[in-house]
Amino acid sequence: MPQKWYNVAPDLPRPLDPPLNPETKEPIGPEALIPIFPMELIKQEVSQERWIEIPDEILRILALWRPSPLHRAFSLERALKTPARIYYKNESLSPPGSHKPNTAVAQAYYNKMEGVRRICTETGAGQWGSALAFACKLLGLEATVYMVKCSYQQKPYRKSLMHIWGATVYASPTNLTRCGRAVLEMDPDSPGSLGCAISEAMEDAVMHDDAKYSLGSVLNHVLLHQTIVGLEIKKQLEIAGDKADVLVGCVGGGSNFAGAILPFVADKIKGQALDFIGVEPCSCPTLTKGPYRYDFGDLARMTPLLKMHTLGHGFIPPAIHAGGLRYHGAAPIVCQLVDSGLVIPRAYHQNEVFEASMLFASTEGLVCAPETSHAIKGAIDEALKCKETGEEKCIVFNYSGHGHFDLAAYDAYLGGNLQDYEYPLDKIEKALQDVPVI
Amino acid sequence: MPQKWYNVAPDLPRPLDPPLNPETKEPIGPEALIPIFPMELIKQEVSQERWIEIPDEILRILALWRPSPLHRAFSLERALKTPARIYYKNESLSPPGSHKPNTAVAQAYYNKMEGVRRICTETGAGQWGSALAFACKLLGLEATVYMVKCSYQQKPYRKSLMHIWGATVYASPTNLTRCGRAVLEMDPDSPGSLGCAISEAMEDAVMHDDAKYSLGSVLNHVLLHQTIVGLEIKKQLEIAGDKADVLVGCVGGGSNFAGAILPFVADKIKGQALDFIGVEPCSCPTLTKGPYRYDFGDLARMTPLLKMHTLGHGFIPPAIHAGGLRYHGAAPIVCQLVDSGLVIPRAYHQNEVFEASMLFASTEGLVCAPETSHAIKGAIDEALKCKETGEEKCIVFNYSGHGHFDLAAYDAYLGGNLQDYEYPLDKIEKALQDVPVI
Repeated sequence: MPQKWYNVAPDLPRPLDPPLNPETKEPIGPEALIPIFPMELIKQEVSQERWIEIPDEILRILALWRPSPLHRAFSLERALKTPARIYYKNESLSPPGSHKPNTAVAQAYYNKMEGVRRICTETGAGQWGSALAFACKLLGLEATVYMVKCSYQQKPYRKSLMHIWGATVYASPTNLTRCGRAVLEMDPDSPGSLGCAISEAMEDAVMHDDAKYSLGSVLNHVLLHQTIVGLEIKKQLEIAGDKADVLVGCVGGGSNFAGAILPFVADKIKGQALDFIGVEPCSCPTLTKGPYRYDFGDLARMTPLLKMHTLGHGFIPPAIHAGGLRYHGAAPIVCQLVDSGLVIPRAYHQNEVFEASMLFASTEGLVCAPETSHAIKGAIDEALKCKETGEEKCIVFNYSGHGHFDLAAYDAYLGGNLQDYEYPLDKIEKALQDVPVI
Repeated sequence: MPQKWYNVAPDLPRPLDPPLNPETKEPIGPEALIPIFPMELIKQEVSQERWIEIPDEILRILALWRPSPLHRAFSLERALKTPARIYYKNESLSPPGSHKPNTAVAQAYYNKMEGVRRICTETGAGQWGSALAFACKLLGLEATVYMVKCSYQQKPYRKSLMHIWGATVYASPTNLTRCGRAVLEMDPDSPGSLGCAISEAMEDAVMHDDAKYSLGSVLNHVLLHQTIVGLEIKKQLEIAGDKADVLVGCVGGGSNFAGAILPFVADKIKGQALDFIGVEPCSCPTLTKGPYRYDFGDLARMTPLLKMHTLGHGFIPPAIHAGGLRYHGAAPIVCQLVDSGLVIPRAYHQNEVFEASMLFASTEGLVCAPETSHAIKGAIDEALKCKETGEEKCIVFNYSGHGHFDLAAYDAYLGGNLQDYEYPLDKIEKALQDVPVI
């Protein structure tokens, strides 16, 4: 198991554009983040150190399921009749069922070290909320999760998971925060939104001395914690006597994709032939259709301005089943890699990715999360290209999570009830009119 | 990974009492089973060979998740302040989420080898049905699953899993079989029962030349296939430089428990100090309160008579959440080991086993199936005994499945809505009046 995280910052093609203060348009300093995050995470956010030691207590908890297995998908290869070798990195074996606890455990640890007693966060469908609840329970912290109300009502089981791990879960909007009360005043029956839940969690953290806020993707320190995935892949391929030609992952905020590819970025910059493919839904085409510019991270404009591909912070994505891929922006690191041509973005429709995950379930046996099905589809398409060209490429994808809490989505697919959406370009342009040009 | 299954038959303290023809009370020969099972499984059922080679194609599929990890539960040990070492064998990482596919894959394989195109089976909550659907899909067979109607309606997600793996799932009673029609005539709104579903699946298999029947527990060949679990435990403990003092498992039909302990039975008979603890619910106290005698395996009296501990084939267990432990009998091999004093049976109540699984989730992070929580409680009690005596025992339990499809049971526990049942002795006596004494 790797003992250090890899920080890609010093190896990026150019320095990252800094987050800006929305008022002054000036770069914000780390001190602005102190009410929100513990100091050690702020340091990691801006660090230029290539390697950062993983503390023993974090390693001890990660060892409950890490190193995660890298499997060769022999049966899938046979079904595709491809000369390619396909590997998948199985991040679904963590207790919460995804890659998310890789950073949840680290974030909970640094908060604990700095005397924080309670962590506030938001969650949509509940994958991130359950990962943070898990991490807090194992480290003896309290977790407060603002869960978008419609998910709270429709997806009871991830809420149950959070309760098992001792978290307090609120249906957002609540009347516990200024922001929640404002929304409820306008509409007492509001189904909530991720933007509102973020605002409530941040407000809760800022208003209480013993509490901080935590985010499950997008930020540099989150991606840093996920590099353990790619570092393991590298080592495991070495042991298998193989070497990656193509790396594939799905992209919502970008953390699982970045975790897999960042440790290989320097190799590619040095000239190794290596493709990084980031897969997103056609209905939320951030990397494939969103311009690369400064925008807010949230609907309520509470965050600093971040340089990223964006569909506009006012973007409201269709209700696809891959809830984790419904974000208007993406991690600034991933966006810079797309902008510089090092990452190839690709978009697929719902039905074709479910078709891919059905093939995977029929061959390798595993039932994946709707988000993960995008990565599977990307890998399958690369393997089919190899079938045409005869190339014996080594294709690796990140199996980011299982679908045990998403079976209603499979029912919808099998019943022929899944709709495909193409997000229209004029809507994106309209959403972006509202964004300050810098 | 072990290349052979271990057959305990030649090492049992005495030969197993044979299954009897209910009409003649004479032992039934293997030929009576030909309409039901493929020849190779019938041979395994009566084999006296100590080691049976695992065919390559089975090994290839098992390798999707095997060898399964044996984890040291360091955090649980710390929480209990016990000098004992606690290990758990994690069988929850198989795609269907339990130990069941260890035999489902083997049974599907032997059926395929003998030209069977379709396998019929019954399922209650759906754990066995989904394991068989998975195995059939990977081996290119059809699966027909008769699912007890009330589960079919109340537990839609295991049904979804079976659909993903291509199985045909019927809500039993159906009007497709003589037996189902008879039940529906009496009560068109019958919620169904496992007994009825077994009868429907067997009838379907017997009536169709290209189909056979499959059972997920109880029989000798099922237990044989599960010994891969115990063989791995043995090897993994060796690698860890440790040696088991206590082995614990939950007992419904008995296959996961037997899989863990059978490879250690000969060691105990030769004099090694070693405790085998089989844990069952107080509400279905087969091993702790049922007499050891011949009884039918099913409500409808279609099976041969089996020598086992039994609560009477007419026994209707309370609706506890550990659905897999609600069987009136248990595997004849396990029962003989209990009768001869080699296995210690123990019974617990619902609430105390959920308390144990909550402690496990809070320390080791994993959320177990309600069945598995019985094994955890058994292991914790052994570890607490060590705390009193100061003994540094090595305690191993079989973590037979995850609880991802059982979160409603946790909600009930956390809401204080779980009832404890003690099954009254006079009811057992009454149910047994109906059983022929041999």
